[in-house]
Amino acid sequence: MTPTHRVYNFAAGPAVLPVPVLEEIQRDLLALPGVGMSVLEISHRSRACESILAQAEANIRVLAGIPDHYRVLFLQGGASLQFSMVPMNFLSPGSTADYIDAGSWAGKAIEEAEKVGRVNIAASTRSDSYARIPAQSELRLSNGAAYVHMTSNNTIEGTQFKRLPEIGSAPLVSDTSSDMFSRPIEISRHGLIYAGAQKNMGPAGVTLVIIPDSPGGKVIEAP
Amino acid sequence: MTPTHRVYNFAAGPAVLPVPVLEEIQRDLLALPGVGMSVLEISHRSRACESILAQAEANIRVLAGIPDHYRVLFLQGGASLQFSMVPMNFLSPGSTADYIDAGSWAGKAIEEAEKVGRVNIAASTRSDSYARIPAQSELRLSNGAAYVHMTSNNTIEGTQFKRLPEIGSAPLVSDTSSDMFSRPIEISRHGLIYAGAQKNMGPAGVTLVIIPDSPGGKVIEAP
Repeated sequence: MTPTHRVYNFAAGPAVLPVPVLEEIQRDLLALPGVGMSVLEISHRSRACESILAQAEANIRVLAGIPDHYRVLFLQGGASLQFSMVPMNFLSPGSTADYIDAGSWAGKAIEEAEKVGRVNIAASTRSDSYARIPAQSELRLSNGAAYVHMTSNNTIEGTQFKRLPEIGSAPLVSDTSSDMFSRPIEISRHGLIYAGAQKNMGPAGVTLVIIPDSPGGKVIEAP
Repeated sequence: MTPTHRVYNFAAGPAVLPVPVLEEIQRDLLALPGVGMSVLEISHRSRACESILAQAEANIRVLAGIPDHYRVLFLQGGASLQFSMVPMNFLSPGSTADYIDAGSWAGKAIEEAEKVGRVNIAASTRSDSYARIPAQSELRLSNGAAYVHMTSNNTIEGTQFKRLPEIGSAPLVSDTSSDMFSRPIEISRHGLIYAGAQKNMGPAGVTLVIIPDSPGGKVIEAP
């Protein structure tokens, strides 16, 4: 196999990158045009880096149809860190978060949330080996839940929410790691969306978080 | 300026990378030899990725002279996350951590530690605009401190510890971001060492943590 021989990669993730993207990275690897340093050498606080991030955010906003009143964050720690960050930020003492337990990753998210606060399993298909998504009629939602958490696509089990569940007024939090950029996502129905980049978007190491301006995590409908 | 024109880069950090290193990354960017996928496409759990990490760890162990009973961790969140992780892991309720306040980054580490537990400023040169490192005779250390924290090199102020302070039996925790790999560091005198990669070692995004096997953070002398 020659160094540039590329195999056919059928893995569910990490994402295969388009060859022209890899070729552009390769071409500019020694020096970004107009900068004269490698992207591996520039400061994360430099104008060059800020401009790369701003362009990435702008592209993501167009591609995912993100309303202006939602922020786009690039975080570390993987989607798994969001399993903890979401309850640490939004599950205050005395309140309850509803979790839809429809796959292995949802199960892991629940484990972390239970370390932080009170969790209600609104529905679970664990006893069916997660072979299906719970029906709307199975959901047992809490009154005044801090949020409702779901995993939109379960590549381990091969199941996927075809539409968002009806959950009333609680903010909907979705782990869309295996859906992001593969189909339209109704951003404005969400209080928070997170997605590890390595599944559908790019290299492991960054997690995309999409969150409305309002700090309480309540969904603000676009005017 | 042509795309591959490289400027002279005199910044104190991030690190300038050797051109042969950049050229090797460039050469293999479309497909790692024997793997057939780009390093940007392989799973962080794949054998190829594990082998890269193992080689990086082995190189670091040789370069920094790390004893076998110390672990080498690659973490995210920057050295700044260690400002929080260190007290969250080692500053238990009722105990005190000693901080040597000898530069801007030490000040930031103190701010974060104070959110977690009790901090004793063992010495400070803040009122001298951090123009010097405190003398050994100025250190006011606590009895039974959970650890003593220092920043070994302050590139903002241009000051550097020429030798490690004498601190008795408490574990020494050093932020060596601006010293790592630039001079020998007495690893075995430390209970924990951390260093953001972007300053002396490589691209921003990873933090090197060197920590002895013993979970309490107590220094174990090599036999």
